[in-house]
Amino acid sequence: MYFTQTFIPTLREVPSDAVIASHRLMFRGGMIRKLANGLFAYLPLGLRALRKVERIIREEMDAIGALEIKPTVVVPGELWKESGRWDSMGEAMLRAENRTGNDLVVSPTAEEAVTALVRDELSSYRQLPLTLYQINTKYRDEIRPRYGVMRAREFVMKDAYSFHAGQASLDAAYNAMGAAYRRIFKRCGLSVLPVKADSGAMGGNSSEEFMIESEIGDNTLLLCESCGYAANVEKAVCAHDFDPPPSLEEAKTRSLSSPALEKVSTPGVKNIDQLCAFFKTDAKKFIKTLIYRMAAMEGGAGRGAFVAAAIRGDLAVNEAKLAAALKASEAVLASEAEVERITGAPLGFAGVAGLTGIPLIADTSVTAMTDGITGALADGFHYAHAAYGRDFTPHLIADLRTAKAGDRCARCGGALYEKKGNELGHIFKLGDKYTRSMKARYLDESGQSRTPLMGTYGIGLDRTLASVVEEHHDGDGIIWPLEVAPYQVILIPVKYEGALKAAADGLASALEQAGVEVLVDDREERPGVKFKDADLLGIPYRVVVGDKTLSLDPPALEVKRRGEKGCRMVELDKAPALLAELVKA
Amino acid sequence: MYFTQTFIPTLREVPSDAVIASHRLMFRGGMIRKLANGLFAYLPLGLRALRKVERIIREEMDAIGALEIKPTVVVPGELWKESGRWDSMGEAMLRAENRTGNDLVVSPTAEEAVTALVRDELSSYRQLPLTLYQINTKYRDEIRPRYGVMRAREFVMKDAYSFHAGQASLDAAYNAMGAAYRRIFKRCGLSVLPVKADSGAMGGNSSEEFMIESEIGDNTLLLCESCGYAANVEKAVCAHDFDPPPSLEEAKTRSLSSPALEKVSTPGVKNIDQLCAFFKTDAKKFIKTLIYRMAAMEGGAGRGAFVAAAIRGDLAVNEAKLAAALKASEAVLASEAEVERITGAPLGFAGVAGLTGIPLIADTSVTAMTDGITGALADGFHYAHAAYGRDFTPHLIADLRTAKAGDRCARCGGALYEKKGNELGHIFKLGDKYTRSMKARYLDESGQSRTPLMGTYGIGLDRTLASVVEEHHDGDGIIWPLEVAPYQVILIPVKYEGALKAAADGLASALEQAGVEVLVDDREERPGVKFKDADLLGIPYRVVVGDKTLSLDPPALEVKRRGEKGCRMVELDKAPALLAELVKA
Repeated sequence: MYFTQTFIPTLREVPSDAVIASHRLMFRGGMIRKLANGLFAYLPLGLRALRKVERIIREEMDAIGALEIKPTVVVPGELWKESGRWDSMGEAMLRAENRTGNDLVVSPTAEEAVTALVRDELSSYRQLPLTLYQINTKYRDEIRPRYGVMRAREFVMKDAYSFHAGQASLDAAYNAMGAAYRRIFKRCGLSVLPVKADSGAMGGNSSEEFMIESEIGDNTLLLCESCGYAANVEKAVCAHDFDPPPSLEEAKTRSLSSPALEKVSTPGVKNIDQLCAFFKTDAKKFIKTLIYRMAAMEGGAGRGAFVAAAIRGDLAVNEAKLAAALKASEAVLASEAEVERITGAPLGFAGVAGLTGIPLIADTSVTAMTDGITGALADGFHYAHAAYGRDFTPHLIADLRTAKAGDRCARCGGALYEKKGNELGHIFKLGDKYTRSMKARYLDESGQSRTPLMGTYGIGLDRTLASVVEEHHDGDGIIWPLEVAPYQVILIPVKYEGALKAAADGLASALEQAGVEVLVDDREERPGVKFKDADLLGIPYRVVVGDKTLSLDPPALEVKRRGEKGCRMVELDKAPALLAELVKA
Repeated sequence: MYFTQTFIPTLREVPSDAVIASHRLMFRGGMIRKLANGLFAYLPLGLRALRKVERIIREEMDAIGALEIKPTVVVPGELWKESGRWDSMGEAMLRAENRTGNDLVVSPTAEEAVTALVRDELSSYRQLPLTLYQINTKYRDEIRPRYGVMRAREFVMKDAYSFHAGQASLDAAYNAMGAAYRRIFKRCGLSVLPVKADSGAMGGNSSEEFMIESEIGDNTLLLCESCGYAANVEKAVCAHDFDPPPSLEEAKTRSLSSPALEKVSTPGVKNIDQLCAFFKTDAKKFIKTLIYRMAAMEGGAGRGAFVAAAIRGDLAVNEAKLAAALKASEAVLASEAEVERITGAPLGFAGVAGLTGIPLIADTSVTAMTDGITGALADGFHYAHAAYGRDFTPHLIADLRTAKAGDRCARCGGALYEKKGNELGHIFKLGDKYTRSMKARYLDESGQSRTPLMGTYGIGLDRTLASVVEEHHDGDGIIWPLEVAPYQVILIPVKYEGALKAAADGLASALEQAGVEVLVDDREERPGVKFKDADLLGIPYRVVVGDKTLSLDPPALEVKRRGEKGCRMVELDKAPALLAELVKA
């Protein structure tokens, strides 16, 4: 391809909203342009790079036996009502009503559409497992789209959905997908961090996020400096004081040596700091008790039910963990009035001893407490010497604590540290969440009707591409890894005329013949401008056709790898074969 | 690919709404499934065929230097307000409002988005010509979507847009695009009928539709049996009584020999039939005069202006031609009250003689009339002996008549006949319609700011694919042309076990090695079922691996071309090379 025959409007300036390297460089390199907030068009060069990412993903999906399909982008709202997500997806989902009054959705994801497709075709266990995928347009109405194609409203997603007759089959597909994701990101030249993730509104349990470290990441990760443990802070665990927690019997025995529960007058003492001052002790001695309203608890205490959550005074409840422990979609702190109604005392005097009429869920930290201070469920009173197993017995014990930098790793005891990350991919075991609500069924080997299990697996292509630029650039521009580069070779005739033109044209066609993707900079620009643009565009191999080297005997060219310092001389005749070999490496 | 590893849910039954062959066969062949009215999902086999069409189109676009880009599918409503089509596109355009209150459009086409992109980058004539294209999702809210993917609401379109510094450049791009379209349809195995078309709401003049004959076509075409003339009835011309029309001077001279205009009392005589009976003559003697309200006349008499259209009594006014002649978007018959207000007489007495206060536009047929009967603009009166040039002088003479089967061809005099057709592609010269309204400018060689000219070129991929099936099938199923076939070879082991399995597996991998796309029917089905499905799916070459032919010396296979009668024996060892040669042919 010749530069003057394509459309690469490179720029020196960057728009003021382009604050990250990928946005800046893709914009300056004439790869993307903004149509509106969060809506970006790919120009020819950017699209070539995006297609490379697409090809890598398609190859890896095909290699694990996933089958490509193409549902529509606009799907009937009815399907979302069936699954229940018409309500729960909120404003991020773009809805429209057509001329006949039908509700339509511009797909933000496609669990519903694919489950509907499979449901209608599925009859026997013999058809399972089945993994379908698409690489298609998605739209999510981000509140604050920014950072170019890193966080846009419309984007391209590879989304796959697997259907299974049993857990072992789902596990196998999930693992194969995870391995494929690792290969995909490796081929893209990306250092991803696979982390355990909170599955949020997606439901289900096992899941893994493929994160890329980024200053502007919208996820906080906790990593262990010793063993490589990595988790989204929403789901990160850390070492406990007791691990495993003591049994109720052990706790009871242990509490015999504690002083008896004692009601203490604490007028006006409401928060942990005031308590520490009053009792002249530290926060670790307190049992903090918080009242939560749980949203949409499935198979639990019902929608809108309240629970009390207890945790050691120096720790914080992780609401995502609390929701997950109760299989709820969300945990929201109760209002002051609700707290008063439920506990019989004003805010600040809730406690674990004597609490009735509401389920108590305790963090494991509380199971270590034999002599704690807790609210006495009465205005102006606390209990001292509260002991787990004697003075209170939670309905459920779970890991509720928010891990933080400096906590010890649950796996190896190493120190945890924090990083910001962007999610490029996500794999989930959904279980029967959608197949059950949407009534997909199959007959098993004994002729019994069953609900298939399901997995869901996504990768954002635009974000992956932007992350490649984030990881591979320098002060001058992009440094594309070979597999993602829009062209493999940029050929720069110092002047595009006479013998230089002839040599450049001949070489270009020889390279194309040899299967090398080559961009010829045939513009009437000074060599300096061409070199600057070549650095900006980041094509892996730069080949300069100049008078001096051409007049050598034998005639030669200067070949330089983008991102490396020196360059080397290559004989003109040998260049096509050599470059073909280099780009295949 | 092995049949049991992919997802091809073939069916014996067809849904009742599948009335055309492509819908029926693509559905039965497990290629498409309906998600909702007008929304179809492609399953793996159908998607493979669609991708073949996509590849052909991409290759031909790239070959003429068109550059692929990817604007978004969801675009800002603002762009459509700029161009004026926010109003004129009507209910076919799917609109949505996002969480921040912005109007969004699910693209039905992309003149606006691409003009906006180019506008921002364009500065100099040196950047022109520029042809950009995309192959992307489109949505049009068809009132009655039907016939499977032939007329769906969501579809894939290749849409290209060219920008030019002058008419010659636009003409050249338009011609190159037309030639590319002919190659595309030829490679798809389609017999398209390129016809001149009414450009409808798209504006501009020169345009060509690529039609495919179809009983369920939504266009009526008129074709000449002798010279190959073909046109959409909306724009078809036919031979006139005078061609070219006489000059006004000639007409005046000619009218000297006609009797003088005479006012005749015609009480209660209003329509042509009554007039024929009253005057004892035939419809050709009358000058029919109709009052129209013109919508959005650009550079004409203004929005909502009225015109009088005159035509010989036996002919019908083609409203699309009338609108085009006046550069209006639409011509609508005036109401009875409007007619009375404008002509001063009740409906039925409008006429050309003495008409004032409204522009008169006459069909060429009227220019031949030297002794016509026309309304006298008074209740119960007509004029006899009206002569063009003497008794009335139109403001504009144009071809307004609706051509019909049986009319004579304007080009050669042959008889015209009618066909129904579906439009697969469309190429237009838009002129400056969008570039002007959206303020795209460039500096010409002398530094003057100018508005570029533009062309627009579309092909519907789904409809093209469905048309391939319409043209290539028989009672048993599809007969894919090689270039569009989802696989090139279907390999059927009579039983998939033992030596037959080994032979089939070996052959499959040898074929894949040789670059042949092969589907192996490894299902546990009777050979009869496999053969029936092979016919249904329409893979071009069927290779049967059976005991009998394998036990020959040397071992052989049965190779049959779908759609042909006999089959031939091919030696097992020679099959891969032979088939590779056949599919490349």
